Amino acid sequence: MVELYDLVGANDLRFSPFCWRTKALLTYKNIPYTTVPVRFTEKDKLAFSGQGRVPVIKENGTVVADSWAIAEYCEKTHPQPSVFPGIGIKEACRFFNLYVDNTVHQALFPLVVADIFAHVDPVDREYFRTSREERLGMTLEQAAAKRAEFRPQLRAVLAQLNATIAGQDYFFGLCTYADLCLFGTCKWVTTISTEPLFDTAPALRAWWERMREQLQL
Amino acid sequence: MVELYDLVGANDLRFSPFCWRTKALLTYKNIPYTTVPVRFTEKDKLAFSGQGRVPVIKENGTVVADSWAIAEYCEKTHPQPSVFPGIGIKEACRFFNLYVDNTVHQALFPLVVADIFAHVDPVDREYFRTSREERLGMTLEQAAAKRAEFRPQLRAVLAQLNATIAGQDYFFGLCTYADLCLFGTCKWVTTISTEPLFDTAPALRAWWERMREQLQL
Repeated sequence: MVELYDLVGANDLRFSPFCWRTKALLTYKNIPYTTVPVRFTEKDKLAFSGQGRVPVIKENGTVVADSWAIAEYCEKTHPQPSVFPGIGIKEACRFFNLYVDNTVHQALFPLVVADIFAHVDPVDREYFRTSREERLGMTLEQAAAKRAEFRPQLRAVLAQLNATIAGQDYFFGLCTYADLCLFGTCKWVTTISTEPLFDTAPALRAWWERMREQLQL
Repeated sequence: MVELYDLVGANDLRFSPFCWRTKALLTYKNIPYTTVPVRFTEKDKLAFSGQGRVPVIKENGTVVADSWAIAEYCEKTHPQPSVFPGIGIKEACRFFNLYVDNTVHQALFPLVVADIFAHVDPVDREYFRTSREERLGMTLEQAAAKRAEFRPQLRAVLAQLNATIAGQDYFFGLCTYADLCLFGTCKWVTTISTEPLFDTAPALRAWWERMREQLQL
């Protein structure tokens, strides 16, 4: 049985986009798993992995950290159904993964960071505020007040995703890790924020509803 | 013989990234072609295509406009070597193509627009200035003065491309239209600007040198 070390907020809420990527992967591959909740400041719980970030999985004594490395590992141990089903698809998924981490998350982060804060366990709030305000270069309250300024950048990113998915079932035609990766991001935002993702992106909304139906997550 | 309607600047300089995409495609597929130079304001030369933008190709009475549509058309008429060599790769290339058009060009445009202006045929300069200043929301001179402000966004985009290509020969492992698409962009920038693309992106530089060697363009 796979054990997944999973970020947890207040009231046992699970919202990390990277952990949701891994949960979507395990679900898609029909790999049973249990989760070990880890708060932002419980780095000691991850010491066995030699680093301090979730997701981490443990299976029969093997430890793998980082959502991309976990996808590579599970593709080897549980090849079917494949998340890299064809020549060049793994590389294309890796590019998509980097795009989501950089371009998509960069556009989302200032818009949702104050919403995340509201769902962080009270014990972790000081850590979260300090680290995120440093990354933002402003206070959480200043970021919340500037939402209207940040939104056009997000709209542009969503328009590109919408243009890609229009007329297709999945981002690369067939279901790949690219879909599971972006699923994690959408699950994150819809879990902790009311920021609208799909109002201007109907094809992306239809994809999201299909993915939720398919994964039942 | 394919005829390519190709953007031309002063002194017969060819710099359009979209036309270079098509030239890279025709070269990669060993399709012989001649070019018909078209200045920015010579929209009448393209009237036969039912629209006003280059690239346009004409082959045995067939007319195809738009670099992506041209790639799809040539893949059908000249399947080998394939630029979409595998299941899902065409969709992945389309995503990459949209990423280059939006994210990469958006980061580049304000940094190189004044350099493009310097290479535009004098006859087209008023048109170019008016249309580009409207897009920029500032004058060309103001954009040139703000280069240092625009550069971090470009550095972030180049870092993502560099991370993707590091340890690989091509963006999706094997040569696909994604490489030809980004080749067009690099050819554009290196033709008209001294803006450094590769100083902070050594793996991207190595890819660029391999592509130039391979295509001899």
